[in-house]
Amino acid sequence: MLDKFFSPKSVAIVGASHTPGKVGYIIAENFTTGYSGNIYFVNPDPEPILGRQTYPSVKSLPEAPDMVVICVKSTLVPSVLKECVARKVEAVVIISAGFSETGKEGKMLEDQLRKIIHGTRTRVIGPNVVGVYDPSTKVDTVFLPRSRMNRPKAGGIAFITQSGAVGSTIADWLSEEGVGVSKFVSYGNAMDVTESDLLEYLADDPKTKVIAAYVEGIKSDGKKFVAALKKASKKKPVIFLKSGKTEKGSHAAASHTGSLAGSAKIYSTVFKQCGAIEAPDWEELFDFAKAFSMQPAPKGERLLIITNGGGFGVLATDEAERQRLHLDQLPESVVQKLKNVVHGYASLHNPLDLTADSDAGMYEKAFEEAIPKYDGAILITLFQVPTLEESIIEKVAGLQRHGKPVMCCAAGGKFSGEMSARLEEKGVPVYQTPERAVRAFAAMARYNLDQKSAKE
Amino acid sequence: MLDKFFSPKSVAIVGASHTPGKVGYIIAENFTTGYSGNIYFVNPDPEPILGRQTYPSVKSLPEAPDMVVICVKSTLVPSVLKECVARKVEAVVIISAGFSETGKEGKMLEDQLRKIIHGTRTRVIGPNVVGVYDPSTKVDTVFLPRSRMNRPKAGGIAFITQSGAVGSTIADWLSEEGVGVSKFVSYGNAMDVTESDLLEYLADDPKTKVIAAYVEGIKSDGKKFVAALKKASKKKPVIFLKSGKTEKGSHAAASHTGSLAGSAKIYSTVFKQCGAIEAPDWEELFDFAKAFSMQPAPKGERLLIITNGGGFGVLATDEAERQRLHLDQLPESVVQKLKNVVHGYASLHNPLDLTADSDAGMYEKAFEEAIPKYDGAILITLFQVPTLEESIIEKVAGLQRHGKPVMCCAAGGKFSGEMSARLEEKGVPVYQTPERAVRAFAAMARYNLDQKSAKE
Repeated sequence: MLDKFFSPKSVAIVGASHTPGKVGYIIAENFTTGYSGNIYFVNPDPEPILGRQTYPSVKSLPEAPDMVVICVKSTLVPSVLKECVARKVEAVVIISAGFSETGKEGKMLEDQLRKIIHGTRTRVIGPNVVGVYDPSTKVDTVFLPRSRMNRPKAGGIAFITQSGAVGSTIADWLSEEGVGVSKFVSYGNAMDVTESDLLEYLADDPKTKVIAAYVEGIKSDGKKFVAALKKASKKKPVIFLKSGKTEKGSHAAASHTGSLAGSAKIYSTVFKQCGAIEAPDWEELFDFAKAFSMQPAPKGERLLIITNGGGFGVLATDEAERQRLHLDQLPESVVQKLKNVVHGYASLHNPLDLTADSDAGMYEKAFEEAIPKYDGAILITLFQVPTLEESIIEKVAGLQRHGKPVMCCAAGGKFSGEMSARLEEKGVPVYQTPERAVRAFAAMARYNLDQKSAKE
Repeated sequence: MLDKFFSPKSVAIVGASHTPGKVGYIIAENFTTGYSGNIYFVNPDPEPILGRQTYPSVKSLPEAPDMVVICVKSTLVPSVLKECVARKVEAVVIISAGFSETGKEGKMLEDQLRKIIHGTRTRVIGPNVVGVYDPSTKVDTVFLPRSRMNRPKAGGIAFITQSGAVGSTIADWLSEEGVGVSKFVSYGNAMDVTESDLLEYLADDPKTKVIAAYVEGIKSDGKKFVAALKKASKKKPVIFLKSGKTEKGSHAAASHTGSLAGSAKIYSTVFKQCGAIEAPDWEELFDFAKAFSMQPAPKGERLLIITNGGGFGVLATDEAERQRLHLDQLPESVVQKLKNVVHGYASLHNPLDLTADSDAGMYEKAFEEAIPKYDGAILITLFQVPTLEESIIEKVAGLQRHGKPVMCCAAGGKFSGEMSARLEEKGVPVYQTPERAVRAFAAMARYNLDQKSAKE
């Protein structure tokens, strides 16, 4: 139903600009670098933009485009939208701000837009949005310059956000960490397409493995939201970061997106009952989404920890206990087998401390002997020690063949960062701290258990 | 008293090695690159190491060195230590492992070492340590190669750690983030110099602004520890990350450093009563230390938040509420003044949302008008938007002249990272998420309040 927002065969940009740096210029430039459909720039000035002819209006376009991006002044938007409806355009992204988020007058203008599309086939994302980014079709309405905000590669996370800024910074961060997205949507004021519509659509999107959402308040009808969230959560993990949870936070949200943020408890209960995952903060929204998009969720709560730094093993254990994961001890048979492959002074418990002078082969063997007893593993690989050869990358990546989640923790500086990036290229998520890795593992384990108990 | 560990006029490395990559080689190399005192390599093989003559023993050295670093096999350590005592060496770092951390026999060996120094002026850091790093004198016993672990620059954080791996990775991370240390000590088994001795020493070290400590269990007598911590906390902030806080974590700690980790509650109570700060996890130990080392602590809990992204303002507000900070509203007089300098659609509350198209001048003016009413500020500067000029760096850095803490939050990718690094070079700490920035601010505010109430 929302396909045309992500895979339009033709796009018109109304408000395409001649001036580098302007919103209408950046969006025009985005589409000319990679998008393969027909592109039309709409601007009353006949001077070409980026070497392409301009058209004075949507009406004057040689074909009815699949999608129209509007980035003109708010007061001009109604007439443009009318033209879109007249030409039966199905997907319209209204970038322009100056609507309900600004107060009464803006709200009236937004109501007017709603009337224009009422009963038609025209669907609107926006207004007041950064819009849509799809790495596979190169649809990109994000008006932030690439020199300041990188676009993430193709991957499994669909990210939907009420706040454009939160969305673009998280997209930028994902790109920096080499984590990919399937679709990115900033839906802003949500005058038409809401979080519920997006949940419904993304639940069936084969490219989306996990849906991550930043919301201040729910824009759609409560019943519709609950139904959409329940359905989506059954198909794939849905992670929410709900802001405005405290009283003052809720006031701040009201003046930001006009959302009635509502009680934190009510939201948390709804998320839980619908089988969705709630991220306590920004970092965890990111961390959880990364884990779900890269690894299968563990079938249970039995976590194996292997480390070359004892202290990190202890910290991971503390967090695992707080998260109520099961750190079952190594079976005696495994301990006996491992005695021949690891150092005599290794600590054959769980966490399994291979000690600082262990090598890649020891990680591999320890994992393979122990994993049948566990639902997944966190490998703490501190790259500062010289005995950990670069072959650790291939070896750890290879462990994914067991079909259980494999995650790493590697803290430090430049070298550690480079090794982590190589691990992530091969599908293994890496976290900077043991606690972050364990929390992401726990979020995945809980999701699976919730799914199981929902089925029973 | 411990001066000779950090500023020795001469150093001998016993176990200096000819083989690149070996512990004894890396340490030898460390001292030949920057350290300006006399260096002696002790190795029975007369073949020079790194172009320098070797000596067969400590006994044979032409002078008694201020400090001796021992990295020979554990069984050889007692005889070397005896020679150090005979030559009245005051500072000995025993890198070698294979002592109490390995069990009964190792414990006996360690007891033997303790007897050797009993009643003498020889003090020992170790065994089983990474040892000492001092960026100003270039004392560096850290046996991790620089290609894998960068050394942090000179700065205000003294970092002491029971676990060498935790210590080295945090040092590596600090170096990556451009945050400096005054001293770094991995004290491991602490057969002689304990966390209490180090607290006493660092409390009076003029280069140390904040002491950060990773401990699994306290190695010194409880009374001594409490006295040292109380005294140190009165002089400067002391932050503890205590691991092994859960039951399983405590078992893991026992097999790691042989620490009786003890009840989490007891530790937390002791830290609180002594005026120390407890970091809940690894990331916060880092975040808090960075804040304290770079900014003055706020005199109260009134936090001003200025943002160019509404959603980030909401998230910061939520965390501020959870941390019980006071987000007092802007006084009406300030609101009136600001109307002339910010956008008409800016949200003149606290958080003060300048909106996405604000510029550096608006941040500066908003801060200067509002700050008299507050104890410090967090500026959320999302660098993805093109209107935020590079002059924001100079402007924000300049705001430090008001003598109140200024911290930033900037999330994202490459460009954002570069801008953040530039801000930090000028003394302003930057955090990747709003919650992390707020928690660091809250830790500083609480420290100051605890100090005040202790004085009353």
